[in-house]
Amino acid sequence: MDSIKNRRTIRKYTEQDIPSTLLDSLLDEAFRASTMGNMQLYSVVVTRDIEMKNKLAPAHFNQPMVTSAPVVLTFCADFNRFSLWCRQRKAEPGYNNFISFLNAATDALLVTQNFCTLAEEEGLGICYLGTTIYDPEQIIRILELPELVVPVATITVGYPDEHPAQPDRLPLRGIVHEETYKNYTPEMIDDIYAYKESLPENRHFVEINHTETLAQIFTDIRYKKSDNESMSENLLKVIRKQGF
Amino acid sequence: MDSIKNRRTIRKYTEQDIPSTLLDSLLDEAFRASTMGNMQLYSVVVTRDIEMKNKLAPAHFNQPMVTSAPVVLTFCADFNRFSLWCRQRKAEPGYNNFISFLNAATDALLVTQNFCTLAEEEGLGICYLGTTIYDPEQIIRILELPELVVPVATITVGYPDEHPAQPDRLPLRGIVHEETYKNYTPEMIDDIYAYKESLPENRHFVEINHTETLAQIFTDIRYKKSDNESMSENLLKVIRKQGF
Repeated sequence: MDSIKNRRTIRKYTEQDIPSTLLDSLLDEAFRASTMGNMQLYSVVVTRDIEMKNKLAPAHFNQPMVTSAPVVLTFCADFNRFSLWCRQRKAEPGYNNFISFLNAATDALLVTQNFCTLAEEEGLGICYLGTTIYDPEQIIRILELPELVVPVATITVGYPDEHPAQPDRLPLRGIVHEETYKNYTPEMIDDIYAYKESLPENRHFVEINHTETLAQIFTDIRYKKSDNESMSENLLKVIRKQGF
Repeated sequence: MDSIKNRRTIRKYTEQDIPSTLLDSLLDEAFRASTMGNMQLYSVVVTRDIEMKNKLAPAHFNQPMVTSAPVVLTFCADFNRFSLWCRQRKAEPGYNNFISFLNAATDALLVTQNFCTLAEEEGLGICYLGTTIYDPEQIIRILELPELVVPVATITVGYPDEHPAQPDRLPLRGIVHEETYKNYTPEMIDDIYAYKESLPENRHFVEINHTETLAQIFTDIRYKKSDNESMSENLLKVIRKQGF
C-alpha cells in the first residue's frame, strides 16, 4: 500500500478544514479494527475549538501542531461506557483493574492506527503525539474524562503543507526473529544501527548537541532516566485514580 | 478503504502457506507506523514450526487458530535492543520503568494494526488474540524473550477459508465526543446498546447461557472480575520481572 509505504509524519497543515462528514466516516471505518470481545473499549474526543486547543497545548509540551492543526483527536481507553451498560442491565462490572486498562488501551491504539491509515489514504497528514501519557491528568481535566477513561494517544490531523524527507527505519533483520528471539551480539547491534548512525542529519545532531554518540542524545537529553521514573510514578497514580 | 470497511476476523485458513518474501515485505511496510522518537521499540517473533505452535497454544487457551494458521506472529514491546545499543555507545539507558513499557507497547500495537491492514489488503485473513497478556510468562519462556521484552499482541495469519458475517459495531454517536466527554445518561446507554441487544445471535446467546441479560454474559462468564484481578496481579508481576 503506497500510502503506508510512503508515509511521513506531517506537522504543518494548510488552513483547509476537515468536513465533519469526512471525519465521521473515517472514524466509523476505523472502528472496524479488532476489539476485545467486541466490547469497543475506547472513546474519541474531537477538538476543533481554538480555546480547547490552547488549553491542551501545555499537556503536549506546547508542540505547535496542537494549535495549528484543524483537528486534534484524543483516543481514550474507556471502560466507563461498558460498565454503565452492565450496571443498567443487572450485571456487576469487574473492570477496575490493571488488565482492563491494558485491554482498553490496546483497543484504543488499534483504532488510532486504523484512523491514521484511513486519514493518510484520504490525503490527510497526521502527527502522533507521544506526550499524551506524560501528564495525562491535565488532559483528563480539560476533556472532562470520567472514571475508567484514560487518554492513550493524541493525533493532530490536517491537509499537509509540507513534504518532509522520509525518516530511516532499522533493517528488517534487526526486528524480526524466526521461531525464537535471538538476542543481539555486539556485532549485530553495530550492523543494525550502522545506517542510522551514518546519516548526515544524525551526525549533525550529535555535533550540535555536543555528545560523543547518537545514543547519548536519547539517554542524556531526550528520554532521560529521571524523567521516565517520575513520569512512570505519575502515570501509575493516574491510572489508579481513574479507577483502574 | 474497502479492505478495512468490509473486514472481518478470519479463524479458518486454507492449507496455502505464506511465502517468506510476502511476509517480510508486509512487516517491512508495517514498520512505517509512527514510533516514539524513531526508536522502533518492538520486535516480532514469527512462528511457522508446528511444534512451536503446539507449545504456544496453551498460552492462548488452545484456540484452534494457533495451530491451524500457517503463520503466528507475536508482537513484543522491546526496549532490549535499544538499551544494548545505548550501552555499546557509552550511553546509560534509563528504560527499566513503567512508562517505557507503555511507550514500547504502544509502538508495538501501532505496528500490529498496520500489519493487519496490509495483510488484509493483500487478501490474507487475520485473527487478533487478546490472550497474549493473560499469561505472558508462558510465551516469554517459549519464545525465549529476554529482559525488557514483553509480548503484547498475537496475530494468526493465513488465506481465508471462511466468510463469516461482519460483527456489529456501536453507533458513532456512542463513541465520539465533541470538545469534552459527555457522560452517558441511562437513555443514551439504552440507545447505544439497543441494536446489539436486538440481534438474533445475541438473544440466542443469552438463551443458551441462561442469563437474564447480554451484559451478564460478559460480567459473569466471559470477563469475570475475579479472573481480571488475578490476571492483573500476574501481568504487573511479569512486566516488573522483565525489567520494566
